[in-house]
Amino acid sequence: MTTTTSRPLVGVLNGPNLNLLGTRQPEIYGRATLADIESRCRELGAELGLGVECVQSNHEGELVDAIQEWRGRAAGFVVNAAAYTHTSVALRDALLATGLPFVEVHLTNVHAREDFRHRSYLADIATAVIAGCGPHGYEFALRHLASKVAPTITA
Amino acid sequence: MTTTTSRPLVGVLNGPNLNLLGTRQPEIYGRATLADIESRCRELGAELGLGVECVQSNHEGELVDAIQEWRGRAAGFVVNAAAYTHTSVALRDALLATGLPFVEVHLTNVHAREDFRHRSYLADIATAVIAGCGPHGYEFALRHLASKVAPTITA
Amino acid sequence: MTTTTSRPLVGVLNGPNLNLLGTRQPEIYGRATLADIESRCRELGAELGLGVECVQSNHEGELVDAIQEWRGRAAGFVVNAAAYTHTSVALRDALLATGLPFVEVHLTNVHAREDFRHRSYLADIATAVIAGCGPHGYEFALRHLASKVAPTITA
Amino acid sequence: MTTTTSRPLVGVLNGPNLNLLGTRQPEIYGRATLADIESRCRELGAELGLGVECVQSNHEGELVDAIQEWRGRAAGFVVNAAAYTHTSVALRDALLATGLPFVEVHLTNVHAREDFRHRSYLADIATAVIAGCGPHGYEFALRHLASKVAPTITA
Amino acid sequence: MTTTTSRPLVGVLNGPNLNLLGTRQPEIYGRATLADIESRCRELGAELGLGVECVQSNHEGELVDAIQEWRGRAAGFVVNAAAYTHTSVALRDALLATGLPFVEVHLTNVHAREDFRHRSYLADIATAVIAGCGPHGYEFALRHLASKVAPTITA
Amino acid sequence: MTTTTSRPLVGVLNGPNLNLLGTRQPEIYGRATLADIESRCRELGAELGLGVECVQSNHEGELVDAIQEWRGRAAGFVVNAAAYTHTSVALRDALLATGLPFVEVHLTNVHAREDFRHRSYLADIATAVIAGCGPHGYEFALRHLASKVAPTITA
Amino acid sequence: MTTTTSRPLVGVLNGPNLNLLGTRQPEIYGRATLADIESRCRELGAELGLGVECVQSNHEGELVDAIQEWRGRAAGFVVNAAAYTHTSVALRDALLATGLPFVEVHLTNVHAREDFRHRSYLADIATAVIAGCGPHGYEFALRHLASKVAPTITA
Amino acid sequence: MTTTTSRPLVGVLNGPNLNLLGTRQPEIYGRATLADIESRCRELGAELGLGVECVQSNHEGELVDAIQEWRGRAAGFVVNAAAYTHTSVALRDALLATGLPFVEVHLTNVHAREDFRHRSYLADIATAVIAGCGPHGYEFALRHLASKVAPTITA
Amino acid sequence: MTTTTSRPLVGVLNGPNLNLLGTRQPEIYGRATLADIESRCRELGAELGLGVECVQSNHEGELVDAIQEWRGRAAGFVVNAAAYTHTSVALRDALLATGLPFVEVHLTNVHAREDFRHRSYLADIATAVIAGCGPHGYEFALRHLASKVAPTITA
Amino acid sequence: MTTTTSRPLVGVLNGPNLNLLGTRQPEIYGRATLADIESRCRELGAELGLGVECVQSNHEGELVDAIQEWRGRAAGFVVNAAAYTHTSVALRDALLATGLPFVEVHLTNVHAREDFRHRSYLADIATAVIAGCGPHGYEFALRHLASKVAPTITA
Amino acid sequence: MTTTTSRPLVGVLNGPNLNLLGTRQPEIYGRATLADIESRCRELGAELGLGVECVQSNHEGELVDAIQEWRGRAAGFVVNAAAYTHTSVALRDALLATGLPFVEVHLTNVHAREDFRHRSYLADIATAVIAGCGPHGYEFALRHLASKVAPTITA
Amino acid sequence: MTTTTSRPLVGVLNGPNLNLLGTRQPEIYGRATLADIESRCRELGAELGLGVECVQSNHEGELVDAIQEWRGRAAGFVVNAAAYTHTSVALRDALLATGLPFVEVHLTNVHAREDFRHRSYLADIATAVIAGCGPHGYEFALRHLASKVAPTITA
Repeated sequence: MTTTTSRPLVGVLNGPNLNLLGTRQPEIYGRATLADIESRCRELGAELGLGVECVQSNHEGELVDAIQEWRGRAAGFVVNAAAYTHTSVALRDALLATGLPFVEVHLTNVHAREDFRHRSYLADIATAVIAGCGPHGYEFALRHLASKVAPTITA
Repeated sequence: MTTTTSRPLVGVLNGPNLNLLGTRQPEIYGRATLADIESRCRELGAELGLGVECVQSNHEGELVDAIQEWRGRAAGFVVNAAAYTHTSVALRDALLATGLPFVEVHLTNVHAREDFRHRSYLADIATAVIAGCGPHGYEFALRHLASKVAPTITA
Repeated sequence: MTTTTSRPLVGVLNGPNLNLLGTRQPEIYGRATLADIESRCRELGAELGLGVECVQSNHEGELVDAIQEWRGRAAGFVVNAAAYTHTSVALRDALLATGLPFVEVHLTNVHAREDFRHRSYLADIATAVIAGCGPHGYEFALRHLASKVAPTITA
Repeated sequence: MTTTTSRPLVGVLNGPNLNLLGTRQPEIYGRATLADIESRCRELGAELGLGVECVQSNHEGELVDAIQEWRGRAAGFVVNAAAYTHTSVALRDALLATGLPFVEVHLTNVHAREDFRHRSYLADIATAVIAGCGPHGYEFALRHLASKVAPTITA
Repeated sequence: MTTTTSRPLVGVLNGPNLNLLGTRQPEIYGRATLADIESRCRELGAELGLGVECVQSNHEGELVDAIQEWRGRAAGFVVNAAAYTHTSVALRDALLATGLPFVEVHLTNVHAREDFRHRSYLADIATAVIAGCGPHGYEFALRHLASKVAPTITA
Repeated sequence: MTTTTSRPLVGVLNGPNLNLLGTRQPEIYGRATLADIESRCRELGAELGLGVECVQSNHEGELVDAIQEWRGRAAGFVVNAAAYTHTSVALRDALLATGLPFVEVHLTNVHAREDFRHRSYLADIATAVIAGCGPHGYEFALRHLASKVAPTITA
Repeated sequence: MTTTTSRPLVGVLNGPNLNLLGTRQPEIYGRATLADIESRCRELGAELGLGVECVQSNHEGELVDAIQEWRGRAAGFVVNAAAYTHTSVALRDALLATGLPFVEVHLTNVHAREDFRHRSYLADIATAVIAGCGPHGYEFALRHLASKVAPTITA
Repeated sequence: MTTTTSRPLVGVLNGPNLNLLGTRQPEIYGRATLADIESRCRELGAELGLGVECVQSNHEGELVDAIQEWRGRAAGFVVNAAAYTHTSVALRDALLATGLPFVEVHLTNVHAREDFRHRSYLADIATAVIAGCGPHGYEFALRHLASKVAPTITA
Repeated sequence: MTTTTSRPLVGVLNGPNLNLLGTRQPEIYGRATLADIESRCRELGAELGLGVECVQSNHEGELVDAIQEWRGRAAGFVVNAAAYTHTSVALRDALLATGLPFVEVHLTNVHAREDFRHRSYLADIATAVIAGCGPHGYEFALRHLASKVAPTITA
Repeated sequence: MTTTTSRPLVGVLNGPNLNLLGTRQPEIYGRATLADIESRCRELGAELGLGVECVQSNHEGELVDAIQEWRGRAAGFVVNAAAYTHTSVALRDALLATGLPFVEVHLTNVHAREDFRHRSYLADIATAVIAGCGPHGYEFALRHLASKVAPTITA
Repeated sequence: MTTTTSRPLVGVLNGPNLNLLGTRQPEIYGRATLADIESRCRELGAELGLGVECVQSNHEGELVDAIQEWRGRAAGFVVNAAAYTHTSVALRDALLATGLPFVEVHLTNVHAREDFRHRSYLADIATAVIAGCGPHGYEFALRHLASKVAPTITA
Repeated sequence: MTTTTSRPLVGVLNGPNLNLLGTRQPEIYGRATLADIESRCRELGAELGLGVECVQSNHEGELVDAIQEWRGRAAGFVVNAAAYTHTSVALRDALLATGLPFVEVHLTNVHAREDFRHRSYLADIATAVIAGCGPHGYEFALRHLASKVAPTITA
């Protein structure tokens, strides 16, 4: 769990298999690694006056733990729950319990993929959903959150 | 994993986000903490002549492990699997493998919530299902199990 | 219609074929008769400081009439609508019209039976639902209602 | 069963819980009682040259009986079957057996309520369906029936 | 409730609107009245060595009562539940509670009618189902029951 | 677009193919032309103290335009969207954007026609729905709206 | 293909695996062989003044051929299409092409078996459907057909 | 149709009722008008080295015309089809016919609204989908398109 | 709207995006332009003794207008409604209102494409449906219509 | 199996009950016999420079055999699989195994008939589908195939 | 029908189009012919102490006949019903009637193909299901059956 | 995590509750323990010239981790994901990310069990699926993989 301290704090959560980014099917997912994306998030966060902390895990329970750990400290989340988007009520409940805004992000356009990827347990409680913008999606999500949690900053 | 030793033993299993009880949306979930509920369970267990052990985890795998660990020792379970109720076949299989009676408990009336909370992978193999009674649900579950596993004691 | 006078008043409603309890498939439904259950309800009601009145009917319309008759007098209900649980919008509307809390009770675990028994026209407007606890279900329902309508009394 | 004698005769049928009108959730159902509505129906019937007889019951069987009793005497019906709209094939069959026109009336806009209220066992065999006009619905139904059964009178 | 005393006893149950037989759409339902059918049943019962008792009601609850009343006395049933076939779990439960064989009869071929008439709450627990044979259906049902409850008699 | 000036103003909107009324399948839709209906609406509007403006179009976009044009001027609508009832979210959104009450009207009983005519994108946001009353439906809708927007006038 | 010459002629058609009757799961299908049933049909046909011809085949195409061959000669059919009931549109079309009445027969109560046995491609075009009466079903079907094709004979 | 000339060209398409932005339910849709959004798009386009042309219409056909008109001239699209998102195959086909990338934008989070808004005829052929970011969504879409059609510019 | 005057008259209607034929994905739709197809239709019409008028529009409303305009003049239609095939009840109603035969044509085999293209609001009221024959489809449709409206001419 | 020798060869396949054409419900299927149709196909084939061989069978397996027999010899097929269209995966697989183009033909408009006739196991792998053109359908299919397999010949 | 005599006997059943193996789409189905597979089965059977008889047919009825013919002689089956897997209840019934174990085999992974290939009428009554192993699947099936019917032999 | 070093390497993955094999419902799952199965896999792997490494976990995340750890080292997988088969998209994605062949194995015939066990998130991306062969399934899977990854070895 990488931490950078500035505020308000945004938690950037990445789900299963996203640790493989850059090496896994780069023709689909692009050549940016997760480290690249997280580093870009911290950088942009600094620009936007946001602290950014990043967590990735393949374990549903660890993702729930991370969200709980952020309660009281964070002001919002960028959530790419990957496969757990489609199967995890536990993540939904953890996010609901924080009462905080979050943006659901997908690197690829999930609407153009298998049917089961069209169902999200998060989308209807998210502030916004961004799919198919690749790594840009994280940036857009941070910018939009900034306008919510640090309203003096424009996206 | 908290353990109290009396017998027959009942395992009280709590799933993801229930560790937040008392602080998470208290207007919905009440002000009782998980510690309060577990403590009340042990107390009532003692009254009913039951040993009570309590486990909570946000990790599906840890909940499966806990049930497996109780095999051969426990006489039944009180199970509030929370979000995993609706998504976990693994918990179903772990409970089936014990061959023991269990009561499914939900603090809130899941039938009055989102559609996906109406499906339970546990209900059809449970002895009984209690939803919407708040912390009382655990007490009722223990009383009912007592009548099954320690039949000389009335609920 | 049996009446006992203490207060607050709880109406205990039993639907079609429950008059056969004790003699109908006792291996499934147990040996307790409806009279036993109603008598236990009144007894426990007294302990909990509740008046308890019991009605059973095989007629949907009579059950609607009974609920209407209790409006203004009762503080809550224990409702085992049996088969009408799955088919009666009229009972739902009658209960809604009272604006009072009620606990839906089923002797058996309806979730483990035919598919059509998984749909309830009452569950989403009930305070709580208890299924599979046999006659204990009525006791638990009364205890839980007591905490709602006579809050100085703990379940 | 109230009867007024003029002709042609229209039967006004009200189903379960409609006897509570005026006192049941008046913010939803309005302050008009069933007596008010029935009285207004008789009054308007007189204006339109129609006899009007009114029946209300919480019992599906009594509603079937009433329709059968009207066979041969009535020229049409205004039917607010309330909850039985959604569950009663018996009422459908009774109405079919008369071969007479009827207008289905609902005080509230059932299309804006629970899903199960969107299914009607009567609508496809009705002459017309009027929902959400409150007590006006009965008047409109009578006016429309008048044009069918007493064609010299315009609605 | 008409009673004829011979034994073993078969209860012939007719549901809502069947009292109109002969006068209701005779081109569809034929010109035989319910009295004709019941009389033919008693007559054939006598031939087959069976007592036959007949009940008709438009009230679901009265049909449930009738079945309960026959418990312990009857050896089987001929059941034309008409509209309640498609909506009544209460009749199903009442028949299940008797543990007796019964034949489901429909005058018309329900498979050729509206979709909702294709669902029967009785068919899967019936001994046999006969649809579309008109009044003959009752005779065939009696003959088949005779072979079950009075096996020396051939259908 | 015909305009009559009295107030409060009610917009009467007619959708595709309704310009053919009177000549299109008169045995189904009757012999009244759209001009007859619009003229009767203006006449009745005058009686009820309402201004009435009428628009008909075969173009979904023109119907949206008309509703937008009425914003700020009209007090409510009578909407017979005909085929667009079943396919147009744009009309729904235009009506929602006005925040005004409207009554959905259909000349025929759509519940007795093809399945796709049972779905309405308007019904759940309408004040009331009237189907199958022929041209009377417009009159009833105006009367009911009058009671909403000019409450001193009874329907 | 066995033929007996009397008239009017009824074709008795038996589908796949029915040639195994008597030896295949006799506890379910009974001990009567197909020969017994066919012989009983011819016998009863004689009593009823009907000619009876019997065909059994495991081949869908042969069953279609048989029905076609009977066109112009037969007056009706008794059809136990067994498995093809649930999968054969070809048999449906062959029967439709004859324009003759037929009774669908099943030895067992198909409504109590697998879901796919609840769908019949024949039932909605049959005169009548008889299921669960064992070999009696054929007799009842013949008797009922007799009343259609030889109306002077009562069933 | 407003036009600004720089290149590559991006068409910004807004569907029905979006002309009302700023005045229509501002608590939901915000106070920015369509003119504000279009002006911001042109401004940002200039920054990103993109020409931007904007079209809004309430007419499905005009939106199709606009897309066709852009063929051969534009390099991509930002499409907020509003209500037509959920009902228009014609827009889908028009976009497919261009063979160009486009980003689907919604001001609100459509996943949190009515069920019929969860279906999009455009999403599976879009490059990306952005919902719930308000006016920011257009900016993000332009930035993302810029990286596709003018790859030297980073979002 | 192009017009050729011979009679009986057939209207050839082409829906949205068909104006792009020849330039839009020619590997799929072929190299024939709409002008080619319309010209071939007029030519073949002349051979068959039919007048042919052609209309194409991207606007649903204009297509409805065109059909209405043809009422009383035309003897039948060839309809390639393209995308509106799958979404337009308005076109269905317009065609129904003419009471004339029409042949539904698709250039491509819609049955081999997206699921939503398998539903047609026109097919069940069409005389015939031809899909996948490319421009030949129009010729076949004209030939078949000729045999209906000018029966002395063989297709 | 009739054979005519010219080339390229087209197999014309007719499924169950089509041997009855001309005598079976002529008001629906017309008066042309299968011999007429096959003869017209051979005649038109000659005109188009195609050999034509015709097979009809009521047996699914024989139809599969015929298609296999044509592999390596034929250049395409005209397939009216009749009832097997809706139930036979075996025919689909046989056609797939040939890798040849075929046109699916239906005499009647199957889209206007029973729901189960709307599903085709062949349509999505066919080159084209023609329904409702009566015997013309075969001619159109041959013409279209001719343009595929003998491209110098126009349809 | 090829027969080899050793015992216990296993019947190897191959359904429609499998006679084309080796020549039909070899890139998908491989280059092994059916003769190769059958020969390998007999060979391996010999090794495992099993008699092996092989039948292939394109005719559902012949496959049913073959299974019936094996009753009393065979100890189990290897069944690749190909297309009939998805459509034949007759094969299911024939296999059920034998009461013998069988292994369902598919050369390709049917789960990765069209939706209708995911439904099997055999799988739930099979001992085991093997899909996607190519010709190996037959070998594995024989080995597994050997362990059932000749338990001294390990797979 | 047990490791044996030979190559090419096959990973054998076992999901939740499979650690209980041998003691959990042995009448269903057999008496072989997981250790027996893993040991047999290593042994057979050696025979087939394959290295075999085995991992079992009750934790979805650990199974994902294990697959990721095998990337670059393994040549294929044998996957018995047990309960996670039916609920885990994360495992699917992890397997997809490896781009390697794998065989899905189930000890029991999942097609004969609860409906939710009929859905697999892995089957459509697996090379092959083997269900119901007990421990043999692992052996067959290894043999089949050997033919893929070490093609000189026959299964």
